Amino acid sequence: MNPNPIEALAEQFEKFPGIGPRQAKRFVYYLLSRGFNEIDQLSLQIKNIRNSVAQCNLCMRMFSLSLPRLNRDSHNTTNTSENSINHSVTLCSICENKNRDSGILMLVSKESDLEAVEKSRAYKGLYFVLGGTLAVLEKEPEKKIRSLELINRIVNATNIAPTNTNLNPVSEVILSLSATTEGENTAEYIKRILKEIMEKRALKFNITTLGRGLSTGSELEYADTETIRSALENKK
Amino acid sequence: MNPNPIEALAEQFEKFPGIGPRQAKRFVYYLLSRGFNEIDQLSLQIKNIRNSVAQCNLCMRMFSLSLPRLNRDSHNTTNTSENSINHSVTLCSICENKNRDSGILMLVSKESDLEAVEKSRAYKGLYFVLGGTLAVLEKEPEKKIRSLELINRIVNATNIAPTNTNLNPVSEVILSLSATTEGENTAEYIKRILKEIMEKRALKFNITTLGRGLSTGSELEYADTETIRSALENKK
Amino acid sequence: MNPNPIEALAEQFEKFPGIGPRQAKRFVYYLLSRGFNEIDQLSLQIKNIRNSVAQCNLCMRMFSLSLPRLNRDSHNTTNTSENSINHSVTLCSICENKNRDSGILMLVSKESDLEAVEKSRAYKGLYFVLGGTLAVLEKEPEKKIRSLELINRIVNATNIAPTNTNLNPVSEVILSLSATTEGENTAEYIKRILKEIMEKRALKFNITTLGRGLSTGSELEYADTETIRSALENKK
Amino acid sequence: MNPNPIEALAEQFEKFPGIGPRQAKRFVYYLLSRGFNEIDQLSLQIKNIRNSVAQCNLCMRMFSLSLPRLNRDSHNTTNTSENSINHSVTLCSICENKNRDSGILMLVSKESDLEAVEKSRAYKGLYFVLGGTLAVLEKEPEKKIRSLELINRIVNATNIAPTNTNLNPVSEVILSLSATTEGENTAEYIKRILKEIMEKRALKFNITTLGRGLSTGSELEYADTETIRSALENKK
Repeated sequence: MNPNPIEALAEQFEKFPGIGPRQAKRFVYYLLSRGFNEIDQLSLQIKNIRNSVAQCNLCMRMFSLSLPRLNRDSHNTTNTSENSINHSVTLCSICENKNRDSGILMLVSKESDLEAVEKSRAYKGLYFVLGGTLAVLEKEPEKKIRSLELINRIVNATNIAPTNTNLNPVSEVILSLSATTEGENTAEYIKRILKEIMEKRALKFNITTLGRGLSTGSELEYADTETIRSALENKK
Repeated sequence: MNPNPIEALAEQFEKFPGIGPRQAKRFVYYLLSRGFNEIDQLSLQIKNIRNSVAQCNLCMRMFSLSLPRLNRDSHNTTNTSENSINHSVTLCSICENKNRDSGILMLVSKESDLEAVEKSRAYKGLYFVLGGTLAVLEKEPEKKIRSLELINRIVNATNIAPTNTNLNPVSEVILSLSATTEGENTAEYIKRILKEIMEKRALKFNITTLGRGLSTGSELEYADTETIRSALENKK
Repeated sequence: MNPNPIEALAEQFEKFPGIGPRQAKRFVYYLLSRGFNEIDQLSLQIKNIRNSVAQCNLCMRMFSLSLPRLNRDSHNTTNTSENSINHSVTLCSICENKNRDSGILMLVSKESDLEAVEKSRAYKGLYFVLGGTLAVLEKEPEKKIRSLELINRIVNATNIAPTNTNLNPVSEVILSLSATTEGENTAEYIKRILKEIMEKRALKFNITTLGRGLSTGSELEYADTETIRSALENKK
Repeated sequence: MNPNPIEALAEQFEKFPGIGPRQAKRFVYYLLSRGFNEIDQLSLQIKNIRNSVAQCNLCMRMFSLSLPRLNRDSHNTTNTSENSINHSVTLCSICENKNRDSGILMLVSKESDLEAVEKSRAYKGLYFVLGGTLAVLEKEPEKKIRSLELINRIVNATNIAPTNTNLNPVSEVILSLSATTEGENTAEYIKRILKEIMEKRALKFNITTLGRGLSTGSELEYADTETIRSALENKK
């Protein structure tokens, strides 16, 4: 580690997504301008962040436990309003919500995608967070996204969450990925493995993908052929 | 006019859409660097552009006549491969194409929108070019867009183009406007007047709008609520 | 040439500096929306632009003749307020201005650079327009910039403009090029050939370059080493 | 504080310079993807940053102490390679460097400006960090920048750092501020108060400002009048 504390901390911030050396340095000087209390507070929040979240065994998302827990070992014993943990099963508020349609499973690549969909209040099924996307010609896809966990989620849901009595078998999987090259490449890969397990396990469910069309703000003049085609198919 | 010819020409280019004083000046210096032949050629093309296009009486679009016509008066007498003009009716290649579904009418705001849709090869009906969009609270909409011509097109098509024997009554109007505030505002206005003429004229046709959804390149994380809602409705 | 007049004209506009296919198309539709008079006017201005400017024999810049001349052959006979042409010598208003210091020669790459300097009213000498810049490793520099004309200007000025009685021998050459790689590369090349002619012709004049430093709007934090060095040397 | 730990931490990151809600959220998910060790390390570095830096009594800059000190009270007793602290005087490595010209004082608005100048290796005098800039019509300038500390630095330097035997009286003050409106406004204000203390205290020193000119990368065509004027004055 850099012996110079300012440089050393700046190097940490440089690892943050989208942060270059200059902004990293500015973060450090910003902190130096704050009071000890504010700095200690931030330091504590960072220290506890991993303990104050849990990973849902069903959808694999990271979610906040209402009460930050300072003791790492007590992980699976607390019980909070936002999630129920028993028999060492951790479920997020969405996965344990009996009012949601547990037969529909939407695949998203990351938590922030899930949040965007929740914000729209347009979806009432469950989710599965893949944890990434696949670049074209990705050598080891199963290391980039949770493909094995996905299969397990679809096949063994009831074993994963035996307590979740209202968990229906998956009848539809919605591929909810960005309309980008990586997103489409990921969708192609997922479709392939989903079809495989349908055969192997004699399962049957629909595989759907989000509709394409003009997204808010886009101008017809600049729309590409595929967007226009879909916009026409989806006219209403 | 500016007595300085360089300044005077720059001022003309400044009127071009999206061109500022500096680029206008650069255009002039660019021309000064070209040969006399190239300059004369450009000058001639500009002089003839209005004569080398006609406006379709049905869809109102400007379209190229294959052979530039140098005599303005001879306007409605030539007959070209790309359009047929007789009995002083001017029709573009799309409006006179008997293989297109003349019962479906897509409304676009400008020629370049129409070209984008044609490029997608996803549409086989006819068009009508509104010639603009409506800002919110637009005082005189009928001066900004061809609303009267649109009504006439829908009601009197057969009178406008008596020779066009295959012209069916409009069964569907597709509002094909940009997913922008102006586009949506224009769509609202058009819907209103279309419903009026349906009542007045005891006409019946469907009014549809292009489907919304993720357009190519857009990321789920940044998609707004309406886009996500539509993308979900249009999933397939 | 494209048989479709709209496409054909768009292709001409595409050659304009910084114009892509879409904007070129928009230019055409813009023209189609103008009246015949305005279009004819523009067409005429373009047709005459080359005749309404002359190239100064001394500084090589293109400059406007106050009265556009429609007859190309009468080129060197007119006499206008802004320039005097006699004995077939064409001089621009700057080069013939007896109040400017004709011993100082500023080299710029193009007319718009010259205009920026004139606008600053900070320079009272003469100019020479190189007509371009040199990319690194440029094979044939003398084809990209007026290096031969420059030498001729410095050595034979009095022969070029015998009538210009107040033309002093060059005592200083100011290299006024952009602070870019191409600009610096061009400056290096010019310095080399200027030193050569000083030797060959036993001439003596100073070669200077514009001062570096913080340009208006630039922030110290982001200034590169060379800019800061110069800013310090030039502190006052 | 937001009861949701993820939201709460995101809100902290939102306070960082130039960070919006989305990127703040991404920072949190980034941390959640790291190991406990890395997170604890970052938390510790942040906790200690204020203790691992000191503020130089002479130039007012924040600088790293080579060994982070965990005990806040022991602040003025440690002695490190990068700075000497005794008789409760804290000096940074630059201010205590006997090889630098202590008679020249450069005023910069913030640490990162100072670093940019140091990086250029073109300056051998001392610095004073104003700690900010002044917006036009700033009501309470002395609260935005260290104007009082600056006066004290110039007048009482030897009292501030009695141990610094090689501290010469200030013979030149270099205003090293950005070439922006705020920077120039700050420079004007500083000049005024510096002239005041020269009168009051019967002191005499030069006040200089960084030279203007073409900064690396800027094109002559787009240079403003003041930049061109300076570039001409500073030609060499």
